[in-house]
Amino acid sequence: MTGENIMADQILQLKTIDSEIQKLIHTAALLSWDQETYMPPAAVDERSEQLALLEGLIHDRITGQRAGELLEGIGLSEDQPDGPDSLDPAQAAFVREFYRRYRRSIKLPKKLVTERARQSALAQRVWVEARKASRFSLFEPNLSTILRLVVETAECLGYDEHIYDPLLDEFEPRMKTSELESVFARFQERLKTLVQRIMAGRPVESSFLKRSYPVEKQRAFSNLVLTAIGYDLKRGRLDISAHPFTTTLGCSDVRLTTRYNEKYFNTGIFGTIHEAGHGLYELGIDTSLCGTLLADGTSMGIHESQSRMWENLIGRSLPFWKHFYPQLKTQFPEALSHIDLEQFYRGINVVRPTLIRVEADEVTYNLHILLRFNLEKKLVCGDLAVKDLPDAWREESVALLGVAAPGDADGVLQDIHWSMGAIGYFPTYSLGNLYSAQFFKVMEKELPEMTRPGGLLERGEFAEILSWLCQKIHRWGKTFPAGELCERISGEPLNPDYFMDYLEQKFSDIYGI
Amino acid sequence: MTGENIMADQILQLKTIDSEIQKLIHTAALLSWDQETYMPPAAVDERSEQLALLEGLIHDRITGQRAGELLEGIGLSEDQPDGPDSLDPAQAAFVREFYRRYRRSIKLPKKLVTERARQSALAQRVWVEARKASRFSLFEPNLSTILRLVVETAECLGYDEHIYDPLLDEFEPRMKTSELESVFARFQERLKTLVQRIMAGRPVESSFLKRSYPVEKQRAFSNLVLTAIGYDLKRGRLDISAHPFTTTLGCSDVRLTTRYNEKYFNTGIFGTIHEAGHGLYELGIDTSLCGTLLADGTSMGIHESQSRMWENLIGRSLPFWKHFYPQLKTQFPEALSHIDLEQFYRGINVVRPTLIRVEADEVTYNLHILLRFNLEKKLVCGDLAVKDLPDAWREESVALLGVAAPGDADGVLQDIHWSMGAIGYFPTYSLGNLYSAQFFKVMEKELPEMTRPGGLLERGEFAEILSWLCQKIHRWGKTFPAGELCERISGEPLNPDYFMDYLEQKFSDIYGI
Repeated sequence: MTGENIMADQILQLKTIDSEIQKLIHTAALLSWDQETYMPPAAVDERSEQLALLEGLIHDRITGQRAGELLEGIGLSEDQPDGPDSLDPAQAAFVREFYRRYRRSIKLPKKLVTERARQSALAQRVWVEARKASRFSLFEPNLSTILRLVVETAECLGYDEHIYDPLLDEFEPRMKTSELESVFARFQERLKTLVQRIMAGRPVESSFLKRSYPVEKQRAFSNLVLTAIGYDLKRGRLDISAHPFTTTLGCSDVRLTTRYNEKYFNTGIFGTIHEAGHGLYELGIDTSLCGTLLADGTSMGIHESQSRMWENLIGRSLPFWKHFYPQLKTQFPEALSHIDLEQFYRGINVVRPTLIRVEADEVTYNLHILLRFNLEKKLVCGDLAVKDLPDAWREESVALLGVAAPGDADGVLQDIHWSMGAIGYFPTYSLGNLYSAQFFKVMEKELPEMTRPGGLLERGEFAEILSWLCQKIHRWGKTFPAGELCERISGEPLNPDYFMDYLEQKFSDIYGI
Repeated sequence: MTGENIMADQILQLKTIDSEIQKLIHTAALLSWDQETYMPPAAVDERSEQLALLEGLIHDRITGQRAGELLEGIGLSEDQPDGPDSLDPAQAAFVREFYRRYRRSIKLPKKLVTERARQSALAQRVWVEARKASRFSLFEPNLSTILRLVVETAECLGYDEHIYDPLLDEFEPRMKTSELESVFARFQERLKTLVQRIMAGRPVESSFLKRSYPVEKQRAFSNLVLTAIGYDLKRGRLDISAHPFTTTLGCSDVRLTTRYNEKYFNTGIFGTIHEAGHGLYELGIDTSLCGTLLADGTSMGIHESQSRMWENLIGRSLPFWKHFYPQLKTQFPEALSHIDLEQFYRGINVVRPTLIRVEADEVTYNLHILLRFNLEKKLVCGDLAVKDLPDAWREESVALLGVAAPGDADGVLQDIHWSMGAIGYFPTYSLGNLYSAQFFKVMEKELPEMTRPGGLLERGEFAEILSWLCQKIHRWGKTFPAGELCERISGEPLNPDYFMDYLEQKFSDIYGI
């Protein structure tokens, strides 16, 4: 064989290994999805063992000797983590991502990987119970175990600057804690000023959102919106879980969950649209990448840019509701009687520092993230003990938001992430907010028909919007790293000004400031 | 180490291997359960690949070199398939069953195993579509593939007498086709005579069963019965699928499915009780066997004895409905108006040669099995081509039942089994019927309180019945082979007379003959 042929053959062998890994990842995803949706409660111990086994099998294959030899043969190394220049772009992306995954995994003992899977599965069930009882102490032992395993993971992965770096890198590849801190610093002051101005603006009435919204009707409406924006339910589902999430079980099997609150309209619909944003990304990946490790979002920040864009820039916009509000009003004639479109739009966009992140308005949302980012850094550095977390949460909440939850359910226990060991994930929500505004600005320019009066959104026509997102973002999967993708789309690196411009304009109108 | 210690250590090593196999089997079971219940339709191709991978991993572990060495070391061989006498009963059962599985699997090429898994997953979806369209020709190519793989499996496994033997052996270990034929021969004449006598008896009115029974209310009633008979829904679920089934995802995760027909009452409730009988068996297995290959029904015949006993000997009995009928009538006051308990009891037990096996009465049911047994033997022998199956089905149906379906949906396409490659399964339903009557006779003697007027069944008290079944059958899992279990319970081998005695007595009363 010629050198070129040898390399093509080595890549083919890697693809075979990867194909098996992907099938196992999707199988493990089903075990997790089922645990959150339909699994009988008593099965949790056995499920945690099944998940630990699967994660171990995945780890074996990622770190297998043959994979290492092939990567070396192709020319991947610490000094050349992107592989040789001779590869075509698709091959280059494949080996780059394979090597990235290999390099991370090879540093982790299998025992640590399986133990994390086992303990996460167990902790999630305890978290649900603890949240129901609003008692952090029930969850504390599990979280301590999880934190110990996460810190051990970070130590194994290694870091130059901050122990948080390798954790963040799992969700936002190539981003450093210090970069993130400077991103936050760049818009934090402007955000605070905006919050103060809004608080002095004309008040927004939103109490009608807490009237009675029967769950069955919410579910029907969620499905209606899902179908309208182009979610293909032959390739996905919408179910109910304690914490909304999206999971990929294959290129043609991307499942969403949401939750409904009869006494608060926003929970269900915006949870659904948010997750649909994630799901549309996964379903939009080019079929040529199907079954490979490139068939995945390129970073959680980019992923959240899609969920937050659909949820907020589209889903909380006036033209969107110009289309859907008449249908909504037919579903809930009592709750929405005497509420006109304008009032509804202002109501769903009310800005108010509150307790629950997933129900926060667009303006204060990033403060919820900052709170978690600050606490996570302290936890992994050992500057904060798990037992002191509820108090620290309250303090941080008062400092950033001016409010604090009396109980744990609405405070430290509100999010599922830590129970899953997903420390380092939260900041990607803020990155998603920033990216979403930056991308939306470009989309508005290239699709002037989108937001203008009588345009696509007002007509409830989402196909062109989805197609734009697909062409620019979805289809590529992990082909381009987040930073490169951002430059390709917008011609510049991540720039928080777009997000702040967007917020200031939108909320100046709403609050008459 | 002493010889005894060495052996104990070898068994421990086998148990470790087995434990991983069981987790993979349960994971594959989830993939299949999900395919039948919640999987989005477009995901079927990817799912078939995931299942093929899992079945391959399972096969690797069952047939692993280390497993073979350990079995040999312990003293298992073709000449000594039950292992050395020195083992205690629990160990002996474990190594016997491990060796049995090993010996079968080692004869099968991995490629055949994965291909069967892949093709079965694909064929099931096609079967659903073909049945919907009532067109066998849509399913024919898939069934041809499945049959080819099943025949190849039988050839690999080998046989002395009949190619059907190794297939039957998968579901009813140690039973031969010739034995089965002589069992059928032993009661076939008596059955025919009974059918003739019944046809000449006083007619039974059952048209009220085809009134309107809203599905939601049927579902609620199914859950009520399930809970009443002692099905622990913390360790299981009831869902809906095209064909009812029970599947085990762990010792604390045994799931049932059923289906409801708004226009025919029997489908939903008796389907549910049937599957509950399977599920109660699995849930009743002793916790000491949990996670091992012994935590499974000992044969499908014994398994069906449990489902058919709950469905028929209990669920279609007068005392059972003496308890439940008042509640049922509250649920369906219109459909059941002017129908008293006696009429209801006679109605649900109407004997009439009909088209659908799962809806057949207890008397003609075994004729449906004979039909399939006859056709399966011809198919695997090559005496019947797949394309000629619909006609052969019709002929056999006329010969045995005196009726034939005009379309394929109610004929050759009615059962899921062949699409799953489960050729050799059907006869176990008849074995189940026979075993159920034999066991029930013993239970009646040992629990005289059960069927007497004012007794357990009439009071809706099932705990003692379930406990008896658990002590005699469920708790043992695969510890005793079917024949041995039958002798332990009833003091004699399988004897079809009990079943015929039961039928003759029950239906003489109902038909006044």
